[in-house]
Amino acid sequence: MTNAELETGGLDRLARVRIVLIETRHPGNLGAVARAMKTMGLCDLVLVNPHCAIDGEAKARASGAVDVLERARTVLTLAEALADTVLSVACTARRRDLPHPAYTPRQAAPELLALAAQGPVAVVFGSETFGLSNEELTLCRWLLNIPTSPDYASLNLGAAVQVLAYELRTRLADAPIDLPIFAAATHAEIEGVMTALMALLTERGFYNPENPKRLLPRLRRFFARTGMEKDEVAIWRGIVASLGQSSRGKD
Amino acid sequence: MTNAELETGGLDRLARVRIVLIETRHPGNLGAVARAMKTMGLCDLVLVNPHCAIDGEAKARASGAVDVLERARTVLTLAEALADTVLSVACTARRRDLPHPAYTPRQAAPELLALAAQGPVAVVFGSETFGLSNEELTLCRWLLNIPTSPDYASLNLGAAVQVLAYELRTRLADAPIDLPIFAAATHAEIEGVMTALMALLTERGFYNPENPKRLLPRLRRFFARTGMEKDEVAIWRGIVASLGQSSRGKD
Repeated sequence: MTNAELETGGLDRLARVRIVLIETRHPGNLGAVARAMKTMGLCDLVLVNPHCAIDGEAKARASGAVDVLERARTVLTLAEALADTVLSVACTARRRDLPHPAYTPRQAAPELLALAAQGPVAVVFGSETFGLSNEELTLCRWLLNIPTSPDYASLNLGAAVQVLAYELRTRLADAPIDLPIFAAATHAEIEGVMTALMALLTERGFYNPENPKRLLPRLRRFFARTGMEKDEVAIWRGIVASLGQSSRGKD
Repeated sequence: MTNAELETGGLDRLARVRIVLIETRHPGNLGAVARAMKTMGLCDLVLVNPHCAIDGEAKARASGAVDVLERARTVLTLAEALADTVLSVACTARRRDLPHPAYTPRQAAPELLALAAQGPVAVVFGSETFGLSNEELTLCRWLLNIPTSPDYASLNLGAAVQVLAYELRTRLADAPIDLPIFAAATHAEIEGVMTALMALLTERGFYNPENPKRLLPRLRRFFARTGMEKDEVAIWRGIVASLGQSSRGKD
């Protein structure tokens, strides 16, 4: 895209890339993230249960991006932060012990930008101390690994957001982004299918909330990884409803 | 390159990319730069006339990259920082008023890495407040512009170094880098030609150090932009020497 095209179509896409920070501990990092976002045209910041305030240090580090900080939404859970998104990915240090597909920012940028044409897309960053829990990762469709030196892989939170945001802006400027040919389901729609299915499985005794084992996270990972389409949400809601009815019909 | 190849040949190149910071004012930025460098495998940091100390704040922000800070060299002038380099580029916000060629980090990465096979290559960053002077830019061969939002282009120093270092590491991992087929001259060798030429021009009265006008910066920009080869340095030294002799012969 040329700079002029960027100003029209492209900017909408960047504005739909949401940065989600979980339990951030250092106010300076909030500011650095806001500044990193704004320099590349991102503006949607969501804080999940932050462990620090947007204080003077945060604003000093934000410099001219204080508006991004001030417009940041604060929510209690990652699920809330993702509810309206059509794609969510989790930025983590390289982990080979997880079954999720993992991409670099350069590999991930085209699909993030393509789906941003349909709705918000989220990139999730864990806390400085603890990173992301497996439960949080399960809510995301892919992992995002920023390539780093094996000797020292510890990117600062603001630096990680800077690299990602730079990659997105650069990708948008370099070439047209194909539009997806399907309508992506939101996180909340997929969760709706999950909830209905789990309710049915509980009713049948296949799932016991008192002794849940690994069923819920495994199913959630399955649906998150799949990247459901809106049509498929409707199909699955139909399947679950029909199974529920036939069961009650038989009883 | 695969990760294994990176560990052998590639790392040498990253280690030869020198980050030069001019008159840095905030110790936190020194630390952020060191951390950004080390996460991508860079380690050669040179501080030109720093306006702050490597203090506790700098070390806190450096986190696990304190070693990069501790090994940083401090010099008085940019010319000293560049003396042994075979390529130097200046990172600036977009400026259309300068005649230098300007590239993005993605465009510049292949040549920076190619020349790093021959010797140190430098990327120069100005102070937080004043950026780079025209005189400093004149010592560099290209400008480096990081693409940013037109609404807010103010990248933090650490963030700018992070983007550049990420781009270099990623480029090295993506594809083989062609070796240059010529031997690049160092900054000091090119300055040597300049000095000899200026001495001759002074002797002839073409250049008057009391009333220098723009001759020296114009010539310096010409030679810096050209990217001289070692052979060409020898040729020019020969030209200048022979012109000097023939003149003295005639007198």
